[in-house]
Amino acid sequence: MTSSDKPENASDTTATPAEHTGVAARDWATASADPQYRAAVVDLLGALAYGELAAFERLAEDAKLAPTLADKAELAKMASAEFHHFERLRDRLAEIGEEPTRAMQPFVGAYDGFHKQTAPSDWLEGLVKAYVGDSIASDFYREVAARLDSDSRDLVLAVLDDTGHGGFAVEKVRAAIDADPRVGGRLALWARRLMGEALSQSQRVVADRDALSTMLVGGVADGFDLAEVGKMFSRITEAHTKRMAALGLAA
Amino acid sequence: MTSSDKPENASDTTATPAEHTGVAARDWATASADPQYRAAVVDLLGALAYGELAAFERLAEDAKLAPTLADKAELAKMASAEFHHFERLRDRLAEIGEEPTRAMQPFVGAYDGFHKQTAPSDWLEGLVKAYVGDSIASDFYREVAARLDSDSRDLVLAVLDDTGHGGFAVEKVRAAIDADPRVGGRLALWARRLMGEALSQSQRVVADRDALSTMLVGGVADGFDLAEVGKMFSRITEAHTKRMAALGLAA
Repeated sequence: MTSSDKPENASDTTATPAEHTGVAARDWATASADPQYRAAVVDLLGALAYGELAAFERLAEDAKLAPTLADKAELAKMASAEFHHFERLRDRLAEIGEEPTRAMQPFVGAYDGFHKQTAPSDWLEGLVKAYVGDSIASDFYREVAARLDSDSRDLVLAVLDDTGHGGFAVEKVRAAIDADPRVGGRLALWARRLMGEALSQSQRVVADRDALSTMLVGGVADGFDLAEVGKMFSRITEAHTKRMAALGLAA
Repeated sequence: MTSSDKPENASDTTATPAEHTGVAARDWATASADPQYRAAVVDLLGALAYGELAAFERLAEDAKLAPTLADKAELAKMASAEFHHFERLRDRLAEIGEEPTRAMQPFVGAYDGFHKQTAPSDWLEGLVKAYVGDSIASDFYREVAARLDSDSRDLVLAVLDDTGHGGFAVEKVRAAIDADPRVGGRLALWARRLMGEALSQSQRVVADRDALSTMLVGGVADGFDLAEVGKMFSRITEAHTKRMAALGLAA
């Protein structure tokens, strides 16, 4: 169960999607023997780690916009949860012998750019951003996890499992739209802008990081080709659209 | 051990300091039957809880000034620890049937005033503030804990036990002074200003909150008179001065 003697790419087209095949059937010790796979996972963990640290910072900042102490505490709780995700990802990088700071550095520009372009101007925009960010991150973690070696997958799923504070944001945003339906139009535009910025920064990362992109387009992780990446982005965008509609926002 | 049939204030002068006497020898259920003691503890928990939430917010804000990702992560860790203290204090307020927000509200002005007056202008000022704030808070918690009923004391000591991230700040500040001794003069002034603002805001709280002040000057908690409060402030200020000297700052 923990190793595979099959040559790489041997099971591309015949595999049942529900089964772990290729890299996904190996553990880290086996999979990381391939230096390109190793570099891709280091990139991925570095990107996720800095994403969590940046999210911590922005949520803590947005907590200042909270209208009540209870709301402030709720956003601080989300921020603190992001920090603990960061710790797990950073510790994992250290465990596999990588300098966490060096692994995160390449992704600082993209995340900081995203947050700079999407600083919420009020509490509701902050909530929508927290909810959208949390949801897209969960979707992405889940998609990528299935394509990782078993040890990296367990970590990514564990970090994912601990998210989902979005319910609080949903409740508050719904109540605000009920109270004043015009708020919905403004927040719908805002959610579109968030998604647009997220996609544009993701493209920047994909263009800059060879190992990571190669993994995503199937050069290393089996059964994950360019068409599949396109489909993944479609699925994430669709899920976003559905969530926004459920929230009362036309996305 | 958990209750006392002695009349209040019976053991004022003869008690051995090492033993818990008066309120300190009772548990919450017994001690809180006195409505004034109860009000004082609710004030204290409310003040500590908002202090932790405000500290979380400011540390997260100051993390932006960090020169490296590792430094940023270290300050984010301190912020996250403060948030978890907040959670324990807030949960305790709820447990004893108090609305946490209402208990915290009276102290918002003092803390926000303190932080507004002491926004660090650079990373080193932020570190000194984190260290000074953490240390003074620990000293105060320890002083007050000895005068509380056993249940409140256990909580305050548990929250205290989890602090002490100051070592990181000490190391960084020392290195900066070693590299450029003039930095020491500027930071010494800064530390004085922090202490001055902290004392001035504490006085404001003492003046505004009857139940809390009465407890501190011995009206409810036994063996704690006005002279003793003066001594407590002296001890905290002295400890601060020693810490600053150890840090290479003339306080």
